[in-house]
Amino acid sequence: KINGARLWDSLMEMAKIGPGVAGGNNRQTLTDEDSEGRHLFQKWCEDAGMSMGVDEIGNMFARREGTDLDALPVYVGSHLDTQPTGGKYDGVLGVLGGLEVIRTMNDLDIKTKHPIVVTNWTNEEGTRYAPAMLASGVFAGKHTLEWANDRVDADGKKFGDELERIGWKGPEKVGDRKMHAMFELHIEQGPILEAEGKDIGVVTHGQGLRWIECTVTGKESHTGSTPMHMRKNAGRGLALVTELVHEIAMANQPNAVGAIGHINVYPNSRNVIPGKVVFTVDMRTHLLDKLNAMVAEFNERAPKLCEEIGVEFSCEIVGQFDPPAFDEGCVGAVRNAAERLGYSHMDIISGAGHDACWINDLYPTAMIMCPCVDGLSHHEAEEISPEWATAGTDVLMHAVLETAQI
Amino acid sequence: KINGARLWDSLMEMAKIGPGVAGGNNRQTLTDEDSEGRHLFQKWCEDAGMSMGVDEIGNMFARREGTDLDALPVYVGSHLDTQPTGGKYDGVLGVLGGLEVIRTMNDLDIKTKHPIVVTNWTNEEGTRYAPAMLASGVFAGKHTLEWANDRVDADGKKFGDELERIGWKGPEKVGDRKMHAMFELHIEQGPILEAEGKDIGVVTHGQGLRWIECTVTGKESHTGSTPMHMRKNAGRGLALVTELVHEIAMANQPNAVGAIGHINVYPNSRNVIPGKVVFTVDMRTHLLDKLNAMVAEFNERAPKLCEEIGVEFSCEIVGQFDPPAFDEGCVGAVRNAAERLGYSHMDIISGAGHDACWINDLYPTAMIMCPCVDGLSHHEAEEISPEWATAGTDVLMHAVLETAQI
Ligand SMILES: NC(=O)NCCC(=O)O
Ligand SMILES: NC(=O)NCCC(=O)O
Repeated sequence: KINGARLWDSLMEMAKIGPGVAGGNNRQTLTDEDSEGRHLFQKWCEDAGMSMGVDEIGNMFARREGTDLDALPVYVGSHLDTQPTGGKYDGVLGVLGGLEVIRTMNDLDIKTKHPIVVTNWTNEEGTRYAPAMLASGVFAGKHTLEWANDRVDADGKKFGDELERIGWKGPEKVGDRKMHAMFELHIEQGPILEAEGKDIGVVTHGQGLRWIECTVTGKESHTGSTPMHMRKNAGRGLALVTELVHEIAMANQPNAVGAIGHINVYPNSRNVIPGKVVFTVDMRTHLLDKLNAMVAEFNERAPKLCEEIGVEFSCEIVGQFDPPAFDEGCVGAVRNAAERLGYSHMDIISGAGHDACWINDLYPTAMIMCPCVDGLSHHEAEEISPEWATAGTDVLMHAVLETAQI
Repeated sequence: KINGARLWDSLMEMAKIGPGVAGGNNRQTLTDEDSEGRHLFQKWCEDAGMSMGVDEIGNMFARREGTDLDALPVYVGSHLDTQPTGGKYDGVLGVLGGLEVIRTMNDLDIKTKHPIVVTNWTNEEGTRYAPAMLASGVFAGKHTLEWANDRVDADGKKFGDELERIGWKGPEKVGDRKMHAMFELHIEQGPILEAEGKDIGVVTHGQGLRWIECTVTGKESHTGSTPMHMRKNAGRGLALVTELVHEIAMANQPNAVGAIGHINVYPNSRNVIPGKVVFTVDMRTHLLDKLNAMVAEFNERAPKLCEEIGVEFSCEIVGQFDPPAFDEGCVGAVRNAAERLGYSHMDIISGAGHDACWINDLYPTAMIMCPCVDGLSHHEAEEISPEWATAGTDVLMHAVLETAQI
């Protein structure tokens, strides 16, 4: 079993970097805080006897050698970047859980045939730079490196420039690694495991996602002196589309969600009717046909709603992945580990997207989930118990040991 | 008659300071550009033989002496600050039109019994610092100077600090001036004069206004892994309230308007359900009873709508004025001037708030309006013809001459 107290200490130590305003974290990708967190992780990895590789998109790969020089490594890991008002565990648990697996194997002097690599994937959250899981997406060949480098944040700063600025652009070509398998431990970010009283979620599938960036164009004019019948109020387009997204998600229950999290209004002045509103619709379900049908309904109805009130609607997809089904062998290794260790467990579908979803397209992959309090995530009050963190990391270690072979 | 070409040149010269991105202006209050515009205006005033006074809130008063040393001055003027994506004429015409009146009187060697003071009121627009007409409001005793100085912009910078920073905090106590009368020339910012084919609007009344800053509080959480029934989506509160405001305005036609121009979403991330949305409702009509009834209906229905979807609603008034009725004598002077000069004219209600509305509470006041193309204002494409600018300024001069007595 892993050392739960040491794991927890490391989680709390990492959380000191980029503290939030309400007990959580603001360690967004490619900020100075992101860089600081990476340095701490690197130091810990070196202290644990691992060697660090960094690729051109900043993905970090800390390697513990195996006994068979020809064997491909087993990868574990997740991400250290956070939401602007994020929690201390989303992503971080998977990276530091991986580190704790190595530390425990060092303590117990366990050797594996396959090397083990603990990974920190760059920009999983996708807040500062859409889409989410950007760097694992480039690794998996979903996007080109050039396209990723050209992403811009709200201040117009390019991804590639910011990566160089914080000093984490590495020499290694992105995707130039082969994997024997990959495991990602992550908090559930939803309420199911806690409600069912289970320690471990054995993730069999994930939801697919579509991020639809919409632009409603009206005409900015004076709120006081423009008669009602002459207005083209882009804010009303946002209002109608907000309710449309909710309606489509509700009509596709169970197992479908939809919301708008990101909204920019122009020129955003109290006495100017909005001339333009840009916002991103987030729609998900684990059934591909349903997902496509939801998007089709949206694409049909949103422009009509806007047309009816005299404003223009346009949209483009800025992030997408289809529902993943994880590798049966790796999923079995997770289930066996939970069983063997005596942790209560259940099969579960991941509500969120994860780096593992992209890697799963290339190599045998699975995920382990632990509960989080009230299902709350992407919130500074995100919380887990040390026991849950320990259980998840124990299962991670045993799944890895089975796969990497002692 | 005034020199229309010289007036137009000055308008175009001023528009070079704080240019917008689409032909208009971004010369928001207390920015470096605001300061630069003030220096140019000061230079022009000094060249025209006037002396400049500046009060503690940055209001500028350029004085041309009268022949009677005991006579109170006739004030003219408006504001030089603009919206973030504003036009070249909103406010500016009233200030530079006032300057042109003085230049013409100098050319023609006209002396008046009463002194004439050309004024630039600080922060009329209210975008960077709510409420609008802040400095004329302090002058008129509607707000205290301390309260005004404590207003903060979106970056947390205080009004008082920014005024000192740009170097335009003057020595004069705010409101320490007595007026014989005040005239403000302004573009209509609405479509009526152009549609009716009139050169001049004789402003008899104005709309009253309420700015209601609303906060909808939900709970931020993950857009993917939070089941629909567990969401508290503050963005839906915004959507429902947006449509409510529209509905209330439409139910009170004619002569009532309502919209939301200013919206901030927290944390504004694509995969986080909005936990908080802050926005400002703008409601207006020229009938006080109707205005109060609209606000009462809003206050009753908005919280209920939010409650029904499980989010909290709170609000406070951040700007307000009751519908003004301008001074009959001054309004008559404007009507007489238009008549005498042979300009087509009509009585009109101001859709927007103006510094003249506050001053009207203290001293005999009136406004002159000229048409603007398509009724468009608070938009970079705001446009007027040189002929309209000339007509309005001619009427301003004659109304002033009648009032200041040759
Ligand atoms: N785990 C997580 O929050 N990933 C971000 C991508 C997503 O929105 O699902
Ligand atoms: N004229 C003008 O746009 N003033 C700003 C105050 C208002 O919103 O009416």
